[in-house]
Amino acid sequence: MKPTEGRRRVVIEEVQPSVDGGRYAAKRVIGDVVEVTAAIFGDGHDHVAGRLLYRHESDKEWCEARFEPLTNDLWQARFPVDRIGAWSFTIEAWVDHFDTWSHDLVKRLDAQPDPKEPTAQVLPQDIPLALRIGANLLEAAAERAEKTDAADAKRLTEAAAQLRHLADAKLPYYDSPMTLELESLVAKYPDMSFATRLDRELPLWVDRERARFSAWYELFPRSCSPVPGEHGTFRDVEARLPQIAAMGFDIVYLPPIHPIGVQYRKGKNNSVIAEPGDVGSPWAIGSAEGGHTSIHQQLGTMQDFEHLVKATQTHGMEIALDIAFQCSPDHPWVKQHPTWFTIRPDGSIQYAENPPKKYQDIYPLNFESKDWRGLWDALYGVFKFWVDHGVRVFRVDNPHTKALPFWEWCIAEMRKTHPEVIFLAEAFTRPHVMYSLAKAGYTQGYTYFTWRQTKSELQEYFEEICNPPVSDFFRPNVWPNTPDILHAQLQEPDPVKRRAVFQLRAVLAATLSANWGIYGPAFELCEWRPAKPAAGKTGSEEYLDSEKYQIREWNRSAPDSIAPLLTKLNRIRRENRALERNEHLVFHDAPNPQLLCYSKATADKSNVVLVVVNLDPANEQTAWLDLKLDALGLPWQGSFMVEDLVTGATYTWKNQWNYVALRQWEMPAHVFRVVRP
Amino acid sequence: MKPTEGRRRVVIEEVQPSVDGGRYAAKRVIGDVVEVTAAIFGDGHDHVAGRLLYRHESDKEWCEARFEPLTNDLWQARFPVDRIGAWSFTIEAWVDHFDTWSHDLVKRLDAQPDPKEPTAQVLPQDIPLALRIGANLLEAAAERAEKTDAADAKRLTEAAAQLRHLADAKLPYYDSPMTLELESLVAKYPDMSFATRLDRELPLWVDRERARFSAWYELFPRSCSPVPGEHGTFRDVEARLPQIAAMGFDIVYLPPIHPIGVQYRKGKNNSVIAEPGDVGSPWAIGSAEGGHTSIHQQLGTMQDFEHLVKATQTHGMEIALDIAFQCSPDHPWVKQHPTWFTIRPDGSIQYAENPPKKYQDIYPLNFESKDWRGLWDALYGVFKFWVDHGVRVFRVDNPHTKALPFWEWCIAEMRKTHPEVIFLAEAFTRPHVMYSLAKAGYTQGYTYFTWRQTKSELQEYFEEICNPPVSDFFRPNVWPNTPDILHAQLQEPDPVKRRAVFQLRAVLAATLSANWGIYGPAFELCEWRPAKPAAGKTGSEEYLDSEKYQIREWNRSAPDSIAPLLTKLNRIRRENRALERNEHLVFHDAPNPQLLCYSKATADKSNVVLVVVNLDPANEQTAWLDLKLDALGLPWQGSFMVEDLVTGATYTWKNQWNYVALRQWEMPAHVFRVVRP
Repeated sequence: MKPTEGRRRVVIEEVQPSVDGGRYAAKRVIGDVVEVTAAIFGDGHDHVAGRLLYRHESDKEWCEARFEPLTNDLWQARFPVDRIGAWSFTIEAWVDHFDTWSHDLVKRLDAQPDPKEPTAQVLPQDIPLALRIGANLLEAAAERAEKTDAADAKRLTEAAAQLRHLADAKLPYYDSPMTLELESLVAKYPDMSFATRLDRELPLWVDRERARFSAWYELFPRSCSPVPGEHGTFRDVEARLPQIAAMGFDIVYLPPIHPIGVQYRKGKNNSVIAEPGDVGSPWAIGSAEGGHTSIHQQLGTMQDFEHLVKATQTHGMEIALDIAFQCSPDHPWVKQHPTWFTIRPDGSIQYAENPPKKYQDIYPLNFESKDWRGLWDALYGVFKFWVDHGVRVFRVDNPHTKALPFWEWCIAEMRKTHPEVIFLAEAFTRPHVMYSLAKAGYTQGYTYFTWRQTKSELQEYFEEICNPPVSDFFRPNVWPNTPDILHAQLQEPDPVKRRAVFQLRAVLAATLSANWGIYGPAFELCEWRPAKPAAGKTGSEEYLDSEKYQIREWNRSAPDSIAPLLTKLNRIRRENRALERNEHLVFHDAPNPQLLCYSKATADKSNVVLVVVNLDPANEQTAWLDLKLDALGLPWQGSFMVEDLVTGATYTWKNQWNYVALRQWEMPAHVFRVVRP
Repeated sequence: MKPTEGRRRVVIEEVQPSVDGGRYAAKRVIGDVVEVTAAIFGDGHDHVAGRLLYRHESDKEWCEARFEPLTNDLWQARFPVDRIGAWSFTIEAWVDHFDTWSHDLVKRLDAQPDPKEPTAQVLPQDIPLALRIGANLLEAAAERAEKTDAADAKRLTEAAAQLRHLADAKLPYYDSPMTLELESLVAKYPDMSFATRLDRELPLWVDRERARFSAWYELFPRSCSPVPGEHGTFRDVEARLPQIAAMGFDIVYLPPIHPIGVQYRKGKNNSVIAEPGDVGSPWAIGSAEGGHTSIHQQLGTMQDFEHLVKATQTHGMEIALDIAFQCSPDHPWVKQHPTWFTIRPDGSIQYAENPPKKYQDIYPLNFESKDWRGLWDALYGVFKFWVDHGVRVFRVDNPHTKALPFWEWCIAEMRKTHPEVIFLAEAFTRPHVMYSLAKAGYTQGYTYFTWRQTKSELQEYFEEICNPPVSDFFRPNVWPNTPDILHAQLQEPDPVKRRAVFQLRAVLAATLSANWGIYGPAFELCEWRPAKPAAGKTGSEEYLDSEKYQIREWNRSAPDSIAPLLTKLNRIRRENRALERNEHLVFHDAPNPQLLCYSKATADKSNVVLVVVNLDPANEQTAWLDLKLDALGLPWQGSFMVEDLVTGATYTWKNQWNYVALRQWEMPAHVFRVVRP
């Protein structure tokens, strides 16, 4: 069967950004200029043109941007996103007969014989005929202009008349009648009769800036009391805020703050039997006191919480809540909504297990419940409850064990009223599942960073996540430690090596990724003792005396704290716009497998940061770096200066090969700002 | 808004083969086993399963194939395509609760304490409870089975009863009640209540085998007369068929056979003035005698043509016609359908031009004609006319100057009644346009092979076109020469170097690509003289005394003809199934920039061909090849034999490094069969 209109000769393909062909939204942040590329072409030699149509969800009309050619039939158009929320764009493209004609005319005029030496190469009637064709095209444009702009129509009609006049004159030699002004006037009124329109509108989600650039500090409120052994409160957390803000973090993230279950409560060091007085795991959520919308009484009241939220804001920071959708056997939902759980043949509720391991303190929710609609509403209600109490950032625990369609709905639902809410997915699972959570709407995601240790592991992984297609939907948030993950590399008894490892992992996290976080004070105090002594691949990644199960006292003023380095790193991040984004990450060759070298730059290369990290905590490492000077905004030859933003030292370097030596007992990394000559 | 069914927890992504997300059909040939891969996964730890649904356009019901897991959430299913025509496939996937349960049961059973040494690690009630859950799952499967197979339903019900019986028995130690038979029985009746179905059906086009594997011989019937100076006829072509068949070609391709225009007829060597008796270009189609459905009288009658078509078939070959959609000023359509052309303001019809060059013997068709429907019907009618006269293969001239939507419709229209028709696109243009013609339906396409000369150019280009995504829609047909293209490299006055160049290009074409062709006898006779003496990048690629404009006499029995090599190459192609396809092309390292080394193998590696080509026609070249032994189906260590299928020589080689020396004055290539020890 023939199409309705067979004269749409232009093809539009390979549109970017596009996540799974437009099934999911690509992500950007406010202030970004979105670069849309597409292959646009038709048959034959006719010129084509295209325009981008884009709008924010609140706009009734499309805005337009013109496509400009790159190479090989690829075109680019750009538009700024000045509001957060849902945007969409599509493309129209058409054969541009006027542009084709105008280029042909130039060739005809250029081929005219010198009037003093007439030849037969160009027949004299050719140019007048071409001028008449041009006049027809201009008149058609004038007709289209008339609907919107009478003055433009008049100018086009006059230009047409002028071409006809020239054609009638039958001159022996013609100068070009075209002007840039006339060309852009005609371009305002293209002939769209046979324009091709992309068969879909591509979605784009625009977040606020902190979605892309943030520094998280996780702490357990239970350990914040200044009185040894006492349970910390929200008030105690408030007292800690100035120090956290001084270190340069902007999100203070709290493990679950809800009532903790009593049945099967875990004791210290994950013991299956809790001693009297054991505080239990905050992730065993729910007791007679309430569930996901209640506050653990030992932390304070709802008023205390709201006070903390506001106090955090006064320090330029935000509170992030940990939302873990699972229930202790004491959670009110267990009695109110037993159908939200899996019931076993003996009538009991199925607890979490990985046979033969049992987690009887945890009831997972059943996303195949008959009442899935009720369950979804309740879970969404949890987020909404805390949003109504001032929270705008959520770290979601194990989102990959909840149905993906739920997340897609829940996040979209929240964004209808609160597009500013940030969701961080705490998923450590297979790549497809990690990425699907991001596609479903998660603003940021945890990563494999903790387990990427060698130079090649780090380089390959960050090249994957910092470039399209992944970077269009997945925003990494990298953590050198979490309460669940004390990597074997950090379980270092030797104090010099330990300090080097913690420092180098902090530098990597803070500079490779625009979003990073630490679990403190365990991190800045270089807490290294694992739950089980045998470190390594088969060892435990659990902390000894983990705060997950008990209150800890931390000596925050310990002299070997690396808080000063963290403070510097966060200051460097704020003062160097190159570190605000991941797109311009470039790895440089260093012929030493223990030295990782990379740079980030702003698009205009006005700010360039070059980082060299010694991945070996045991030895000094040196290398002649082989720098990609263009990535640094430097010419191919000449001197330049690099300033170490950590130590303040400056070096004068020259050309592409430059020497570095990193002594792990001093500082395992250089974080250079590149100063152009 | 919530989805209608929120419990569809499985995601299906990254489905292959898929051309532009299913917008166009992927291509296969009859007898292929189509391998469909997809990422299939859900949340949590539940196992998933999937099935492929596929059908030929003539099938009413879907056929099914089960997906098997690869790694990292990727799955694969396969199905044979046993008929030509349109096929489609889609995917269903679901959480497989029985499989999850069954794996968990194994873990529970494995964790049972030795009955002689009872411990508290596994509580005894766990396994009976698990068995009851399994019984429920089996009963649900039995219920589903009842609709189609009462015997299966009975067996499932019995198995459920057995599990309940075991559960009731409360044994101190349980052996596994599962059997492979039971597992595959349950797998026949999956619970599809919450199955996810891919949101589209992906199209697949299945051609006959010659679409993938063919050897083309182009000749000008006008030069086939045995009488010097006389115009050749279809009868003369018939007389040539035995020789062409003996060389091993299977498609005999004729330039346009239609009446040739008189107005502005081109003379010898493309002269703008034709002398009396000049035969003109066959691509200036149409005269008072007729147009695209008529035969140039000097070639013979329609009966002669039909006789030639049949005679060609008796030699196991087919005739391919050249269809060039353009008209001479004398074509009947010019008067009958002036609206199919572009009319200039002075009432004249626009001829082809690239200012200041004019091609006044050619009128292009206007695909923006008001009567585009009439034009499309007429063009389709041309193909249909020749199909009705026995032709099944078309080489289409400059398809990239005709509207792409036309091709998509025209080829689909033909395939409704004649799915066996092969269309070869003669497009030498930008990559996107070349590929769009293939997506629109072209069976094969000309390539950039002629201009890929160096080792890296050849390797990069063939890696692009022989691998997905390109290989799923674009089938290369490579030509060392055409009547339009005598590449500078072939314009070699020195007879030894010339012979080497022609030979090496023949070996490359015949072994790199499953489809290849030559323009003969110019090629086998190593015709090298260009129209303009200045060869090189700025020189002409036109032949001197081109057959496009005159009758040529060829000394087919010249002693330096390379027909014997072409004969050998075509025989090697037929005797080695590895050369029938492009998918398994692998390049091997040869540390010499003039030696190109590659292999092709059947999927089971029962046939492996290894080719080494000396790209330097002026010098002997040697190298120690670094072979990828796994690609050759060889173990990492040991001896094997390679047999040169051109010379018959055999060599015993060992391990990965082996020495070759290619003397261009002997034979510039080895075409080895690898003989496993």
